[in-house]
Amino acid sequence: MNLKKIYSTSLSLLTDLYQITMAYGYWKQGMAEQEAVFHLYFRKNPFQGGYTVAAGLEYAVDYLQQLQFTEEDLAYLAGLKDGRNAPLFEQGFLDYLRELRFTCDVDAIPEGTVVFPNEPLIRVRGPLLQAQLVETPLLTIVNFQTLIATKASRIAESAKGDQVIEFGMRRAQGIDGALAATRAAYVGGVDATSNVLAGQLFDIPVRGTHAHSWVQAFESEKAAFQAYGDAFPHDSVFLVDTYNTLDGVRHAIEVARSLQPSGFKLNGIRLDSGDLTYLSIEARKLLDEAGLMETNIVASNDLNEHIISSLKQEGARINVWGIGTQLVTAYDQPALGGVYKLAALQHTDGHWRYNIKLSEQLEKTSNPGIQQVRRFYDAQGYIADMIFNELEPLPEQTLVMHPLDSTHRKAIPAGTAYTDLLVPVLRKGALVYELPDLQAIRKHRTTELSKLHESIRRLLNPHRYPAGLEASFHQLKTNLVLEIREKGEAAVQGR
Amino acid sequence: MNLKKIYSTSLSLLTDLYQITMAYGYWKQGMAEQEAVFHLYFRKNPFQGGYTVAAGLEYAVDYLQQLQFTEEDLAYLAGLKDGRNAPLFEQGFLDYLRELRFTCDVDAIPEGTVVFPNEPLIRVRGPLLQAQLVETPLLTIVNFQTLIATKASRIAESAKGDQVIEFGMRRAQGIDGALAATRAAYVGGVDATSNVLAGQLFDIPVRGTHAHSWVQAFESEKAAFQAYGDAFPHDSVFLVDTYNTLDGVRHAIEVARSLQPSGFKLNGIRLDSGDLTYLSIEARKLLDEAGLMETNIVASNDLNEHIISSLKQEGARINVWGIGTQLVTAYDQPALGGVYKLAALQHTDGHWRYNIKLSEQLEKTSNPGIQQVRRFYDAQGYIADMIFNELEPLPEQTLVMHPLDSTHRKAIPAGTAYTDLLVPVLRKGALVYELPDLQAIRKHRTTELSKLHESIRRLLNPHRYPAGLEASFHQLKTNLVLEIREKGEAAVQGR
Repeated sequence: MNLKKIYSTSLSLLTDLYQITMAYGYWKQGMAEQEAVFHLYFRKNPFQGGYTVAAGLEYAVDYLQQLQFTEEDLAYLAGLKDGRNAPLFEQGFLDYLRELRFTCDVDAIPEGTVVFPNEPLIRVRGPLLQAQLVETPLLTIVNFQTLIATKASRIAESAKGDQVIEFGMRRAQGIDGALAATRAAYVGGVDATSNVLAGQLFDIPVRGTHAHSWVQAFESEKAAFQAYGDAFPHDSVFLVDTYNTLDGVRHAIEVARSLQPSGFKLNGIRLDSGDLTYLSIEARKLLDEAGLMETNIVASNDLNEHIISSLKQEGARINVWGIGTQLVTAYDQPALGGVYKLAALQHTDGHWRYNIKLSEQLEKTSNPGIQQVRRFYDAQGYIADMIFNELEPLPEQTLVMHPLDSTHRKAIPAGTAYTDLLVPVLRKGALVYELPDLQAIRKHRTTELSKLHESIRRLLNPHRYPAGLEASFHQLKTNLVLEIREKGEAAVQGR
Repeated sequence: MNLKKIYSTSLSLLTDLYQITMAYGYWKQGMAEQEAVFHLYFRKNPFQGGYTVAAGLEYAVDYLQQLQFTEEDLAYLAGLKDGRNAPLFEQGFLDYLRELRFTCDVDAIPEGTVVFPNEPLIRVRGPLLQAQLVETPLLTIVNFQTLIATKASRIAESAKGDQVIEFGMRRAQGIDGALAATRAAYVGGVDATSNVLAGQLFDIPVRGTHAHSWVQAFESEKAAFQAYGDAFPHDSVFLVDTYNTLDGVRHAIEVARSLQPSGFKLNGIRLDSGDLTYLSIEARKLLDEAGLMETNIVASNDLNEHIISSLKQEGARINVWGIGTQLVTAYDQPALGGVYKLAALQHTDGHWRYNIKLSEQLEKTSNPGIQQVRRFYDAQGYIADMIFNELEPLPEQTLVMHPLDSTHRKAIPAGTAYTDLLVPVLRKGALVYELPDLQAIRKHRTTELSKLHESIRRLLNPHRYPAGLEASFHQLKTNLVLEIREKGEAAVQGR
């Protein structure tokens, strides 16, 4: 994909003003090029779930690589005035921005990987000014796509192998709210979309049925089905609930029969209202009696993973699910709440200084250092994740501590297989990672989920996957927090 | 504004596949040019509120005017295959699409107008194929912007004249989820945004403070404030809660004093955590004691209209509000649920046939005809809205019926002043409406709200504004529903 193909405007101003005012401040202080490390992470799995599916990296990389202030951008910034109507920025700073290219190192967890709270999805290391500037768009892109991929994964899991089609564009939050949602939903496990532009841009299969207005536009429901069947002899899904659902099913069957001699095959019927369990069971009977055993029953109408589960439990005979609003807006939790925090700054003497953001709430206190996530596994699947600090040596004994409750700890036997999740993506701004295509990302997500115990994949009250801090890293963080609490800010400063 | 300035891709494929399959079906049936009327409306005020603020029309008009299938679009459609791997569409249809331009008449309620359930925000009249094709993007654009403008209006109302700044980009649903949200929030009454690209594209004032990372990057909080103050002598808002909020306020005051000789004036301090009521009261005292009576107290941290109201009630001394996630995602209700329904189709003999979509739930049964909304008012403000059908003469006595409860009715005395809300926007696809700029739209919203009784503007349990169907129109609809229920679909067909 290529954001330039979608957006004609430069996206360099796609950020909060304070990123640019801070950039100006760093530039004025001569701190612009100071080496810094930031991590992007979230604090809680969304939807009260047990896992999260990383998504959005390709979009993010694309944004970073095309970061460049155009003359139009600079003219806009030059026109901004301060409280006394003087220019907000000096010309020298705008000249600096004109030459600016993104030259940071970026490490990230590949899309489709299952991830857990506090794990850095993206790590940015490089000049402070640049690493700070990209905070907002990285968050916008990754927060949203990760949220939707996770929602889609939950929905796909609840459908237990049935086909799931995303058709939420009309309720999406804006144009890219639709495009990015469709992409992320596909990453997360839906099989197709109604969004034609997303189909074109991202090579996602597109599917469609017809609307009630199609039926209303004809003299009778049968005439409407007949006309649609004529147009789509091998791809017709008739929407049967415009007047009376079961009559609609009967009309669909009659039309399917009358068109059969010409090679017509009824692909499906769609239910969009009423008691979906009862109606799907009755529809299945009617279709089967008519010999239409292969005709699918598609359902839509404000569905989500919980409704799908409950319909399945009740014995509904639906085998294709159309999901709109609840998926593309992540209706029950429309924001992931990911953050991007400074974790280390290099001093002129080459030493790193740790940075943490304190908070009254321990879960909101950020982690310092240059972080990596190590995932331990065996033949059965994933065992535990350990966030550690690359600036310090790892102790021989591997112990993972719950980030909020140090009495929860897990010892990892020596020799346990592992993989480090953050992989090099950009080096000095240049792409060093082969971005996988969406098919590969989808396959990766499926493999990932198969390695999580089903108790962790459970929709409600899932088991907590052990993901925590390496013990010596946990100790380092604890010491830092205690020191700051005890001695005040002087403790963190000037290390 | 100009969507082409934002998007480099053609937006003609920004629709559900079924719009294009139905278009194909209509084209094959020779029904493509049959005159049709659709209305876009919603069924319930969002956020359990008493009113809704229309928004998104300019975006929508821009989309309609640039509707044109490019060769790339057509090549994509030509490549779509049916279930047997044959092309989904005939070449003749693609040739038809190549020549297609939007030639419908569009009437709409201007942006910033207060609107109520069932009132058509947009009415599209023209060739069936075209009017159907644009359903999805019209809904995407208008649903979202109307939702956010309404949320922003509620937030602005709760702030009672204080400045409100939108800074939700990092949690927005995608790139346009941020851009369109900022635009709509500005329509709805926020005063400025942190979103620089939206500032540039839509000419919205931009504002910013600094992040915690700014403070962390310096040797001490005071050094951080000093450096920021040096860079922005007239626009500094210091974020004071990185270590300890009230110490932070003291540091801000010390820095303000030390910089004063050089002409520095502390614009504000920002609180981003903790007990905002207590902290703002204490901070105000400290600032006032230091003679910084004009220094603003800005607050942020997951605020919404209810929290603002409650902080105000508790006596918080905040006078600038920064609102993010809750505003740009409309967190408590992230979709408006607007729909777009066929209401009338013209027959070859020139007669119109009414269309309604039946439902088990009366509130989901659509209204037929060619609709207009008449708003009655007097010197005190708005009295009632009446949806009526332009295809039938109005009776002499004006009676407005509650759409769901016919025992609720309101007689409007003859001679009452009124205005018809839907105004001509496009005629045969050409713009006949002067699109107001955002300033004018904002002013219009303010005037509109001033004409609504405050009981209707109440955040919780508002009074219901009388908006209903003109009595003879209500009767016509009732007769249609009864006829269909009694005689089945035959009743509606062939009128």
